[in-house]
Amino acid sequence: MAVYTQIGEAELASFLDQYEVGEALELEGIRQGVENSNYRLRTTLGCFILTIYEKRVDPKDLPFFLGLMEHLARRGLPCPLPVAGRDGRALRRLAGKPAAIVTFLAGTSPGRLTRERCAAVGEALASMHLAAAGFPLQRPNALALVGWRRLFDDCRARADSVAPGLAEEIAAELEALGQAWPRDLPAGVIHADLFPDNVFFDNARVTGLIDFYFACNDLLAYDLAICLNAWCFDADHAFNVTNARALLAGYCRARPLAAAEIRALPVLCRGSALRFLLTRLFDWLHQVEGALVKPKDPLEYLRRLRFHRQLRGPEAYGLD
Amino acid sequence: MAVYTQIGEAELASFLDQYEVGEALELEGIRQGVENSNYRLRTTLGCFILTIYEKRVDPKDLPFFLGLMEHLARRGLPCPLPVAGRDGRALRRLAGKPAAIVTFLAGTSPGRLTRERCAAVGEALASMHLAAAGFPLQRPNALALVGWRRLFDDCRARADSVAPGLAEEIAAELEALGQAWPRDLPAGVIHADLFPDNVFFDNARVTGLIDFYFACNDLLAYDLAICLNAWCFDADHAFNVTNARALLAGYCRARPLAAAEIRALPVLCRGSALRFLLTRLFDWLHQVEGALVKPKDPLEYLRRLRFHRQLRGPEAYGLD
Repeated sequence: MAVYTQIGEAELASFLDQYEVGEALELEGIRQGVENSNYRLRTTLGCFILTIYEKRVDPKDLPFFLGLMEHLARRGLPCPLPVAGRDGRALRRLAGKPAAIVTFLAGTSPGRLTRERCAAVGEALASMHLAAAGFPLQRPNALALVGWRRLFDDCRARADSVAPGLAEEIAAELEALGQAWPRDLPAGVIHADLFPDNVFFDNARVTGLIDFYFACNDLLAYDLAICLNAWCFDADHAFNVTNARALLAGYCRARPLAAAEIRALPVLCRGSALRFLLTRLFDWLHQVEGALVKPKDPLEYLRRLRFHRQLRGPEAYGLD
Repeated sequence: MAVYTQIGEAELASFLDQYEVGEALELEGIRQGVENSNYRLRTTLGCFILTIYEKRVDPKDLPFFLGLMEHLARRGLPCPLPVAGRDGRALRRLAGKPAAIVTFLAGTSPGRLTRERCAAVGEALASMHLAAAGFPLQRPNALALVGWRRLFDDCRARADSVAPGLAEEIAAELEALGQAWPRDLPAGVIHADLFPDNVFFDNARVTGLIDFYFACNDLLAYDLAICLNAWCFDADHAFNVTNARALLAGYCRARPLAAAEIRALPVLCRGSALRFLLTRLFDWLHQVEGALVKPKDPLEYLRRLRFHRQLRGPEAYGLD
């Protein structure tokens, strides 16, 4: 998917006329990302990212996303800064859809997920949590327990076509997580999708955090659980405790975890694994004919979910 | 000069506690710049520039400078973004003086001032002029005619010690410019100090405009005249018409000049040459014992001033 919308030259020129970013030299679709159409825009003034928000994004949420990026960039976090037009507004329309330009960040996606990079991303995540304090807008997490149940309802009937017994296993997990889910942990704005695709590095230094289009209010430690799933499993799906220890230590350098957050990590990791299992399962069962991006294998997250379920406690994540 | 203030480790740590920029790893004084103390600050989160405003900057002007950088960065101009503390404010105090952190821009100062770089800086200057439209604060140019006369009063008695006849030549020039100075040209926020030191490049692409601490409201074409003096003379002080043609063409690509602005260019270039002649003369005659930065030769700008004075018209700048 990604790049659903084609933009004409004249249309782009008259869109850019509302900004002071110079004239377009090149517009190139970016294949990454499945929610929106993203383009690398090179102008006489510099490089930018142009995003057209496709139908999976609720336009009501855009002030939250753009406002959050601005809030974080203003506090020194290396994230894109929404570019305002001449009238001061960042959110506009292009090709009949909501659209925005954000600044381009230098750096490359990580190659190998090394211990050093995991430590750096852990610290960057905690810095984001701290820097987001004071951001005035709120957005409930649409992909929390209620949202998972809704996704499951849409997938249940055909889930066993992907793996025998999958429907029953997910139903039991939803039931268990509904019981065990922690309620009184520190909450705030979370990124909710900080996968390696969304972090740029210069060697082991984080130079960019991008894609805030799942950001929402939820438990801070849940964001860390998402990162444990995203950064601490090797290509053969084996848990990499060295990376996990580094990620957690990096996080705690900027924001020490409370004892209750540490205790809750296995349950939060199960929830995070289930969340990606369900969205991937949904995409797998609802493949769009002719889309560029192949859906990701949902079963990778079933393996992670089982890993977290069998743990005796949070020490297994390498916590000292 | 530059780096007048020494900062202790504990003092820096408690200053950074007011931000979400991570913990200090390294603080290094930057020799460039003569107005403020600048430091390259590396933290666990990334790289920043820390500036302590020394006594040559009027604290009343700081909201203009910081607000302008934020306004321009928000509109996509590659300039530093002031970093807000937890309380949302960017302007704070350190070591008993006003201080701020801004984001670090990648890129290097230009080596050779090529035609391509002059074209790029011309366009970036025009983009800055356009992007600054709508910035609500005002700051009169303290280094316009009245300021020049005041500087001259401070230097007049000893000017001839630098070059015989200099006092008389400056007095005549001030008189002539007082008569000929244009009044009805397009005005707005100008950078007023866009020398090669203050522009970063990646090859011929501008990646950063810095040092907005002379920015003010004045004639837009006067800013271009400053750039003609700063970018279009070779090391042997010969005028480089190839660079000038490129600079003007680059500027006009983003903001076409009015006929009256073109006609005024020689007078504006004389004024700009006189402005740098006078501030350099002042610094030359008021050298600070033990300062790191050696004052620049004021007579370079006397040569430029004479060059502009003998021109028959603006065509000499390579305008087509």
